[in-house]
Amino acid sequence: MQVIQQIEQLKQVVRDAKRQGKTVGLVPTMGYLHEGHLTLMRRARQEQGLVIATLFVNPLQFGPQEDYADYPRDLARDCELAESTGIDVLFAPAVDEMYPAGNGKTLTFVDVEKITASLCGASRPGHFRGVATVVTKLFNIAEADVAYFGQKDAQQVAVIRRMAEDLNMNVKIVAVPIVRESDGLAMSSRNKYLDSAQRQAALVLSRSLERAATLLAAGERDSSLIVATVRDLISQEPLAEIDYVSLVDPLTMEALDRVESRALLALAVKFGKTRLIDNMLWEGK
Amino acid sequence: MQVIQQIEQLKQVVRDAKRQGKTVGLVPTMGYLHEGHLTLMRRARQEQGLVIATLFVNPLQFGPQEDYADYPRDLARDCELAESTGIDVLFAPAVDEMYPAGNGKTLTFVDVEKITASLCGASRPGHFRGVATVVTKLFNIAEADVAYFGQKDAQQVAVIRRMAEDLNMNVKIVAVPIVRESDGLAMSSRNKYLDSAQRQAALVLSRSLERAATLLAAGERDSSLIVATVRDLISQEPLAEIDYVSLVDPLTMEALDRVESRALLALAVKFGKTRLIDNMLWEGK
Repeated sequence: MQVIQQIEQLKQVVRDAKRQGKTVGLVPTMGYLHEGHLTLMRRARQEQGLVIATLFVNPLQFGPQEDYADYPRDLARDCELAESTGIDVLFAPAVDEMYPAGNGKTLTFVDVEKITASLCGASRPGHFRGVATVVTKLFNIAEADVAYFGQKDAQQVAVIRRMAEDLNMNVKIVAVPIVRESDGLAMSSRNKYLDSAQRQAALVLSRSLERAATLLAAGERDSSLIVATVRDLISQEPLAEIDYVSLVDPLTMEALDRVESRALLALAVKFGKTRLIDNMLWEGK
Repeated sequence: MQVIQQIEQLKQVVRDAKRQGKTVGLVPTMGYLHEGHLTLMRRARQEQGLVIATLFVNPLQFGPQEDYADYPRDLARDCELAESTGIDVLFAPAVDEMYPAGNGKTLTFVDVEKITASLCGASRPGHFRGVATVVTKLFNIAEADVAYFGQKDAQQVAVIRRMAEDLNMNVKIVAVPIVRESDGLAMSSRNKYLDSAQRQAALVLSRSLERAATLLAAGERDSSLIVATVRDLISQEPLAEIDYVSLVDPLTMEALDRVESRALLALAVKFGKTRLIDNMLWEGK
């Protein structure tokens, strides 16, 4: 596995691979890799000729009060984990390489409207603008044919799908199901922030999603009843502070009154300073 | 020359050409072709393997009070003129093909800040957002290696250069000098709107730019003096109504106090309902 920090060097590797007729699979990450990321990389390895994972904590997608400076970083460990999946390249650029104007700034932004207005977009203004902008840059740098994202960031997946389609990008977006710890907690680099009591309390998230799935499987279709049940369950956990619980259309992120076919139950909950997200995609039946 | 209206069909032509190792040259236009457009096409023809001109009056870049509905269109004539330059493809999609959500709308936009705040960006809010968005789409659809734009739209050139660099697009931007009528009027599809008195009056634009060039060549470096001279000259023409006259940095579009090296003298002037732009790039000496 090659570790590359310069854009031009990565472009050269991509050009060479394309000349050999290889497809390019891209796995964008912010590093501090966990089993969720590694699952994306293994999937890409199976399916693509050249596999590039990127490791970039993107300042543009953090708000001024958020955890950009504190976001966990461990390049040596990430290199080892990434290499174990058999990918070809880990692209780990410096901030100035991605934003040469300095200070992590740029004049050009990609904005996706409406889909970004609710849920995490409402709680984190500018977040998806930063995501869409950096993902566009990475797609262009890697000339990605297929890009792999974790379904845990369900709104991010919807935003990137919409963006790729609206801008006629030549990339296919693949969303890979959430990977969980054995006790049900969704894998996240931010789980590291939790103390043991919070770690235990956070199990209420997957438990409440399972409860909602049970209701749906039993035929319940009233969105407000399902959301209320989930909120009740989470509220019983004293360390949990709800940011949002919402049943939405998985493509548009618009709230649903009733669950007719596909639906996404998405939630964000704070444990101390740590904000976790989780979700459940209901495919109908 | 092939006339193509479907995105997927154009993508197939591009894929085949790339497989043969051809470079793709792109000439985005809104049609109603004149010698300026044809110069871009001939230049692309000389330099690239597959040359695609696009003909699309982009609703997204027109304001509600602007001339979208009235913008001149003549597909048959454009086909003949484009074919005469030897290009391979004229891509002329319907509005719904480019904006399948209907009504010429999209959820995803590309925004370039600062460079778009002055000059035409100030007079035409949303204009450059529409330009940047559609040009991004066309770059992706055509997988353009090199794209050719007329220097008459100097701010557009600066915006697109900035966008391509900021988003790491794999396209080189070439700006081609303004093509003028024999009496000096810059070629524009909107010249068609002028009646004969306005047509005559519009010569004040190139005349005033020449005057500014003479001042610069003589060593004048005071921006406000040069701008005032140009404004005076234009104001002597009763049919002319100045929108802006500005001496700016050609990359950032920021107003210059003094002309040190490169500078762009840009102006927009209305003759009746018709708004014309023109400019002069001073390369220093």
